Amino acid sequence: MKKIVIEQLEQRGITVDDIALIVFDLQKSYYPGLEKEVCLEAIDAVLEKREVQYAVLTGLALDVLAEQDLLPEPISTIIKMDESLYGIDEILALAITNIYGTIGITSFGYLDKMKIGLIGRLDSSLGYVNTFADDIVAAIASAAAAKIAHNQKGNGKYHH
Amino acid sequence: MKKIVIEQLEQRGITVDDIALIVFDLQKSYYPGLEKEVCLEAIDAVLEKREVQYAVLTGLALDVLAEQDLLPEPISTIIKMDESLYGIDEILALAITNIYGTIGITSFGYLDKMKIGLIGRLDSSLGYVNTFADDIVAAIASAAAAKIAHNQKGNGKYHH
Amino acid sequence: MKKIVIEQLEQRGITVDDIALIVFDLQKSYYPGLEKEVCLEAIDAVLEKREVQYAVLTGLALDVLAEQDLLPEPISTIIKMDESLYGIDEILALAITNIYGTIGITSFGYLDKMKIGLIGRLDSSLGYVNTFADDIVAAIASAAAAKIAHNQKGNGKYHH
Amino acid sequence: MKKIVIEQLEQRGITVDDIALIVFDLQKSYYPGLEKEVCLEAIDAVLEKREVQYAVLTGLALDVLAEQDLLPEPISTIIKMDESLYGIDEILALAITNIYGTIGITSFGYLDKMKIGLIGRLDSSLGYVNTFADDIVAAIASAAAAKIAHNQKGNGKYHH
Repeated sequence: MKKIVIEQLEQRGITVDDIALIVFDLQKSYYPGLEKEVCLEAIDAVLEKREVQYAVLTGLALDVLAEQDLLPEPISTIIKMDESLYGIDEILALAITNIYGTIGITSFGYLDKMKIGLIGRLDSSLGYVNTFADDIVAAIASAAAAKIAHNQKGNGKYHH
Repeated sequence: MKKIVIEQLEQRGITVDDIALIVFDLQKSYYPGLEKEVCLEAIDAVLEKREVQYAVLTGLALDVLAEQDLLPEPISTIIKMDESLYGIDEILALAITNIYGTIGITSFGYLDKMKIGLIGRLDSSLGYVNTFADDIVAAIASAAAAKIAHNQKGNGKYHH
Repeated sequence: MKKIVIEQLEQRGITVDDIALIVFDLQKSYYPGLEKEVCLEAIDAVLEKREVQYAVLTGLALDVLAEQDLLPEPISTIIKMDESLYGIDEILALAITNIYGTIGITSFGYLDKMKIGLIGRLDSSLGYVNTFADDIVAAIASAAAAKIAHNQKGNGKYHH
Repeated sequence: MKKIVIEQLEQRGITVDDIALIVFDLQKSYYPGLEKEVCLEAIDAVLEKREVQYAVLTGLALDVLAEQDLLPEPISTIIKMDESLYGIDEILALAITNIYGTIGITSFGYLDKMKIGLIGRLDSSLGYVNTFADDIVAAIASAAAAKIAHNQKGNGKYHH
């Protein structure tokens, strides 16, 4: 199943490598010697979780169907426009972020606001619907960052 | 928008009246003189909320698309089978339940387990996909029950 | 840390054995051959999680301090009375329930409503404050039940 | 009750005015003509909600008791140090942020990470325990920002 999830992410222009760069950016100031390999491993562990897989597949399906005009109205237009009060994308993202506890929420909100790296590119892609995709990327990156923090526990205080 | 939401619920065999019966069942032991009118008003207030409308429309769209075989695989089969570990329906339902605080969660879990009234009928409908619909009904009923509880505040302790 | 958590639970009259009975009750109809040992192992895995440990220790501390009249007013009275709209106990419980995804929420709501076994005894103990304790027990049991469900995945459909 | 909440916030060095500045900072780029009065009104509406009041009072009580060494160990030390994996403060904050739907989560995470204004000052106060206080401020500000966004709905798209 993880393989399918990675394939469907790639079909939407999202590579595990891009996500790893975001995780690295999030965590480098807390863990000076952090290596990209550790970020990739953390993402791999996140994508192994069934709850994450279901959230990713559901969110990407909604983006794809909105793009193909297959959703009923008015939800089709709402998702296509990423209407400002539409929060279902954040809700799905929380299901991903929560798997390593709530400390991932902070990073998620930060990434969603700052639109770092791939997240910003997805958010502004013309012609594509990435209403769910950008939140999914931010959520996977935040969960992976939380996992790294959990593995490093006992290494002193840091501000998450 | 509320009118559209009620119409789309009705197209899936869900009437506000059926939901009111569930709210009444949930709350009658706490508020002996409870009238159905109060339940209907509470449901109306719940359906007025933008977050609720978006959650309902998104969930029903996923049921409809799964029924019409328009979702990509493997998420299509997962939703059609209501796979036991698929929790995205509960996640969407929480977005509804939460609008009057967390006290609605208890009723939601109870309803989802006991499959009371319409919820049980939806869950077992052959030929239809109601993976999201049954949780949506349970969530609207729980939120309405929480609203009634909030309005009655100061009327003494009860166990929610 | 897990040992400390189990000790603090026992000081509030909560044994892992009592929780295992609740998990067994929740899951026996889905898994006919379920053994108590499996329930105990699942609870053990739940209590291993840092997020769970923090939620349990924080909740029990609030019960103890309320009992000793050390909390400031008005929150002291609110917690001691388990005021009907106070939902912070449910919020803490969700932090526990969520660690294996949202499928645990259904069991949690059901247990909280039905007050099965120890949960009912805690809820009604005179002279003690168990505002957080009963939700904590329901949450640990629900998370353990969700873990068992995750481990059994692929064994066909069941209604959670 | 709202009056008591505001008093207890002030006793911890938190004024509604400081929070209004944060809300203003969050929203000024979306609503060019935004006035501080609107921010104050939105905060007032947030603090009117029972769920918010309970979350604030519970969180501040935990900070105060930790400061006075009245919490049992090990949770006392964990809260005093704001241990990096302790996420109960974020969980309480979510109860506040959620009252206007999930769109508040993004602002919350951003504020928590950037430590803007009062939030940064609280977080680094020596001699005081502000483990819950900084998240509470970020959460109230985010909920107020979400309320402003809801009131402005229909005024076109903006990125929350």
